[in-house]
Amino acid sequence: MQFPGAHILSVSQFERSDVERIFQVADAMRPYAHRERMTKVLDGAILGNMFFEPSTRTRVSFGCAFNLLGGEVRETTDIKASSLTKGESLYDTGRVMSGYSDIIVMRHPQAGSVAEFSRASRVPVLNAGDGPNEHPSQALLDLYTIKIELKSRQQHIDGMHLAMVGDLKHGRTVHSLSQLVSLYSNIRFTMISPKELRMPEEITEDLRRRGHEVVETEDMETGLTGNDIVYLTRIQEERFQSKLEADLYRGRFRLNQAIYTRYCQPNTVIMHPLPRDSREDANELDNDLNQHPNLAIFRQTDNGVLVRMALFALTLDVCEQVDRHSREVNWYTERRF
Amino acid sequence: MQFPGAHILSVSQFERSDVERIFQVADAMRPYAHRERMTKVLDGAILGNMFFEPSTRTRVSFGCAFNLLGGEVRETTDIKASSLTKGESLYDTGRVMSGYSDIIVMRHPQAGSVAEFSRASRVPVLNAGDGPNEHPSQALLDLYTIKIELKSRQQHIDGMHLAMVGDLKHGRTVHSLSQLVSLYSNIRFTMISPKELRMPEEITEDLRRRGHEVVETEDMETGLTGNDIVYLTRIQEERFQSKLEADLYRGRFRLNQAIYTRYCQPNTVIMHPLPRDSREDANELDNDLNQHPNLAIFRQTDNGVLVRMALFALTLDVCEQVDRHSREVNWYTERRF
Amino acid sequence: MQFPGAHILSVSQFERSDVERIFQVADAMRPYAHRERMTKVLDGAILGNMFFEPSTRTRVSFGCAFNLLGGEVRETTDIKASSLTKGESLYDTGRVMSGYSDIIVMRHPQAGSVAEFSRASRVPVLNAGDGPNEHPSQALLDLYTIKIELKSRQQHIDGMHLAMVGDLKHGRTVHSLSQLVSLYSNIRFTMISPKELRMPEEITEDLRRRGHEVVETEDMETGLTGNDIVYLTRIQEERFQSKLEADLYRGRFRLNQAIYTRYCQPNTVIMHPLPRDSREDANELDNDLNQHPNLAIFRQTDNGVLVRMALFALTLDVCEQVDRHSREVNWYTERRF
Repeated sequence: MQFPGAHILSVSQFERSDVERIFQVADAMRPYAHRERMTKVLDGAILGNMFFEPSTRTRVSFGCAFNLLGGEVRETTDIKASSLTKGESLYDTGRVMSGYSDIIVMRHPQAGSVAEFSRASRVPVLNAGDGPNEHPSQALLDLYTIKIELKSRQQHIDGMHLAMVGDLKHGRTVHSLSQLVSLYSNIRFTMISPKELRMPEEITEDLRRRGHEVVETEDMETGLTGNDIVYLTRIQEERFQSKLEADLYRGRFRLNQAIYTRYCQPNTVIMHPLPRDSREDANELDNDLNQHPNLAIFRQTDNGVLVRMALFALTLDVCEQVDRHSREVNWYTERRF
Repeated sequence: MQFPGAHILSVSQFERSDVERIFQVADAMRPYAHRERMTKVLDGAILGNMFFEPSTRTRVSFGCAFNLLGGEVRETTDIKASSLTKGESLYDTGRVMSGYSDIIVMRHPQAGSVAEFSRASRVPVLNAGDGPNEHPSQALLDLYTIKIELKSRQQHIDGMHLAMVGDLKHGRTVHSLSQLVSLYSNIRFTMISPKELRMPEEITEDLRRRGHEVVETEDMETGLTGNDIVYLTRIQEERFQSKLEADLYRGRFRLNQAIYTRYCQPNTVIMHPLPRDSREDANELDNDLNQHPNLAIFRQTDNGVLVRMALFALTLDVCEQVDRHSREVNWYTERRF
Repeated sequence: MQFPGAHILSVSQFERSDVERIFQVADAMRPYAHRERMTKVLDGAILGNMFFEPSTRTRVSFGCAFNLLGGEVRETTDIKASSLTKGESLYDTGRVMSGYSDIIVMRHPQAGSVAEFSRASRVPVLNAGDGPNEHPSQALLDLYTIKIELKSRQQHIDGMHLAMVGDLKHGRTVHSLSQLVSLYSNIRFTMISPKELRMPEEITEDLRRRGHEVVETEDMETGLTGNDIVYLTRIQEERFQSKLEADLYRGRFRLNQAIYTRYCQPNTVIMHPLPRDSREDANELDNDLNQHPNLAIFRQTDNGVLVRMALFALTLDVCEQVDRHSREVNWYTERRF
């Protein structure tokens, strides 16, 4: 695809070469995110960080990524304050707001809303989540993390064994990630979930059609065996008939130190899109793994900044100029990356 | 008036020469807003964008205008979070907040609140709407748009024919705009509204006293005839006795492609302060005019940025230095202005 | 203490020499806060201004202080929008958010929350209030104001007479201020409060143990006599059995022009942490003192910016470079400081 000026709305826009281009630019962003240097390549540019649904983390991550490139951020954090509640169309909102910035990041609770908004916008729009539909930067940061973790083990995405655990029916994250991974070859997917929360058939069929292996199981133990990556998702109590049923599920689909040691390979990477529930009786990913070197969950959020910087640099077409506008950092930065 | 250090609280502060000075500076801001160049003339300056009532659009427009001049923006978006709810006086709030920035933009639901706040402030305060009272930058951007639209038709504000349609009784926008327009000469105002929502008599009398012609009518068809500008306003259902009455009104005071073609001159400019209601049965300005070249509603919001940049540049006294601090833009900017 | 990279969580971290170092740096910030010059020493740095509880004033003051040093600010203003409401631990939140900025300022309603968050953070964390527990920058700005006010009278903190008035039992402010002041020598504290709202015994005992004089009284008149500083606090109606009881209290512990003239020394400094209640029947510090030269309440909030700039400069280790990155201000700045 042509990145300059493009809207980034869906993972289905990308070819494998596009994904690899994004990852290449993300790599080049590392010294800036890690504060080895700073850059002002977007000095004077304005991001419209339009969140019509709350999401502190994604909002701050995008805003921070733009600041790290030297740009300014204008924000909205609430749909209630917006004219959309007065019956304004997404077309009008998109046309108006696009007069206030050089690029827009948008989250909105309604599927398709960001695409509709983008049709009226005169500047590039990045989808930061449109309800149950898409959240492409999350899938990209997940796959980018997989790539880096495997690389440090001299492995590659091609041919990897990936297990996904939890509510695979409703999880926007695992749907988009599956779709992205499917651009690579020879993947073995293991889908671990209760029967009622299985991965939608159109997704598993599509994966098989593209030549990947898909194993579906309700059994955590056999499912965990022999994977390079285990990707867990949040237990959503509201999806179940009763709390009792949800608790049963939690007992069966939980990862902690003991289970990891017993069933996973010693170098299996542990991932989760976060937030995870930290309450003793509800956590799908136990805190006793917090110091484990294979726990990649915080590397995921750190990598999110790199991937978002890359999306900005590509759509605003400044990749080649980032280093030229760079300088030394002169404040305290002994971060423990 | 003397702009440097002044509070901008009301359109009644302005002479015609002041309005023309603002428009002249707004013109000079165009290359920066359109990203032909960037300027850092306010590099290091801080705007306190104090919204004690939600208004995404006005807030972001002011913030963006300040960023376009190179300054930083600190914001508040909610009265609930403020000390005003703990019984603090506007005097105390004004005195304290003015210690945090170089200039303040303020919106507050209460008439007169911004003026009261400004009396304690040690920095310039711009009124971004004090309830039913004033919203001077809206009136300025409307008149600025009128000026530009007419200019492209080789016409002038002096002598123009302007129709205002809708709830002319409660609309802060049309009151302030009338007052600004009245500084010019030989205007014909056509006020189109239901009898109960007529323009207040003190305004129409003032217009006549200043030598303008004022026609009042309930008849959309005759009212629309022979105007250079048609300025529509939102239908506010809550103003009417019943939904039935509101619907009747909507049927009679609506502009769409068919009505425009039949009654308006071919070059009549269509304006609206936005947001407009987009629901099929409630829209006073139909989407079938969205591609019409005379539809100026989005040029209005775009021009709002220019006018707000001008107000900042004038009150902070940097008009002469904007170009000196300018540079080339090096990111993707092929916006379709 | 070692400032670079440190978390600032509690006034109990400081020795007298630390406090004096902070004040020395705050003094050096004055030309920048007063806009005699500007500095870009933190150009490119990002503050995560994380407010999980509303507080417009403290939030804007910290954000402004960071901007005045040339840095960028990313913010959150609400706990509801955060993953903490989905059961996420403060550890996870701290670890994730610290990947988005170079330094974090955090407010949270729960005592100890900021310390817990800081244990997972990889960047310095400044406590901006953790519920009833601590708010160190407020105590610092209060003591800094005392120092400056006394200095202008050729007096010193050592040996001063300080009266504290109001709800001394629940006031986080007066507790922390007492603790800071106790690092100096020979102070006479006069604690004026109703019996039920006396300063906690562990605090008064600690003050006496460190060699200070502590007088406790319910009598406003005798209590006010012979002080260099009178520090008033807000009347919190909800602390009392009934409104009647609260009103009784208000009648007895109120400062206005008449009472000041009759009981205070002519140069006694009047302080208050703000906000104060401005309602006629509820105000503990009357508006008739607003023009009094000894009223230091707005100098307190102005000084807050200096103290917060100092905390940023110290923890990010840029004190020596502030002047080197400074320039002339070229916009209107005739502020009436």
